[in-house]
Amino acid sequence: MNAFQDHYPDNVAHCYGCGRLNKSGHQIKTVWDGDETVTRFTPEPYQRSVPGLAYGGLIASLIDCHSTGTAAAAMYRQEGRSLDTLPAFRFVTGSLRVEFLKPTPIDGPIEIRGRVKEIKGRKVIVETTVMAGGITTARGVVVAVQMPEAFGAA
Amino acid sequence: MNAFQDHYPDNVAHCYGCGRLNKSGHQIKTVWDGDETVTRFTPEPYQRSVPGLAYGGLIASLIDCHSTGTAAAAMYRQEGRSLDTLPAFRFVTGSLRVEFLKPTPIDGPIEIRGRVKEIKGRKVIVETTVMAGGITTARGVVVAVQMPEAFGAA
Repeated sequence: MNAFQDHYPDNVAHCYGCGRLNKSGHQIKTVWDGDETVTRFTPEPYQRSVPGLAYGGLIASLIDCHSTGTAAAAMYRQEGRSLDTLPAFRFVTGSLRVEFLKPTPIDGPIEIRGRVKEIKGRKVIVETTVMAGGITTARGVVVAVQMPEAFGAA
Repeated sequence: MNAFQDHYPDNVAHCYGCGRLNKSGHQIKTVWDGDETVTRFTPEPYQRSVPGLAYGGLIASLIDCHSTGTAAAAMYRQEGRSLDTLPAFRFVTGSLRVEFLKPTPIDGPIEIRGRVKEIKGRKVIVETTVMAGGITTARGVVVAVQMPEAFGAA
């Protein structure tokens, strides 16, 4: 129970990318590493673009959920609260930008590292770097927005 | 055999998002509608963010593969060639930007519409709109780049 996603309230823990209750999804796990956040994910062989390389949509998805998780953790940290305290912080994506720099090898773990660039009211801007096989293959910027109350009500 | 993706050469038809040979993937199909391109995709219930809403990473993935397909089709059209002629055009994503405007309902088809904004050498810029349930829920911009020869060689 150390990852940010382990503390998402049950009603908002169904996301395909990061919900621990979504049995079909990626179930990514993100943790602090000093001032950075880290997610490590090993793709399945079918999550490819061409044989040997990871699918760009997967990279975008990992950046997306890594960043909303980072945004939540950053808000807890700013308030000096631990992740298991209420009310819970949970974020959605306002915008996502990915620059694909190089092909991402599929035959090993992909590491996403994030940094909080700015916290402004209900918005958090997170910058990420994607590494695989020792090389930086993509960069991302996400504007994460605190989730409206209605989102978890269904 | 009317969709752009039906004409991708076998060695580059394994993409999780758009490869017809990827049995586990989305297998999106994109066609011309006048000067626009259209993809319609109905999500699975597990491809959610919260119950009732589609996962943002799915939206990003659909925009991504829709746009690389549009880029290829636009090049064929520019050359006055049909999709089944050689050499084949196939594109990868240089950059992807998604603005999430509203939640995307998951209980029906999602429609992605694309327009070619610019063709410049090996680069094609594609702008997309995502609609679901009669409302525009997201917008995307992809810079697609003609695939290096080495990509399909593995």
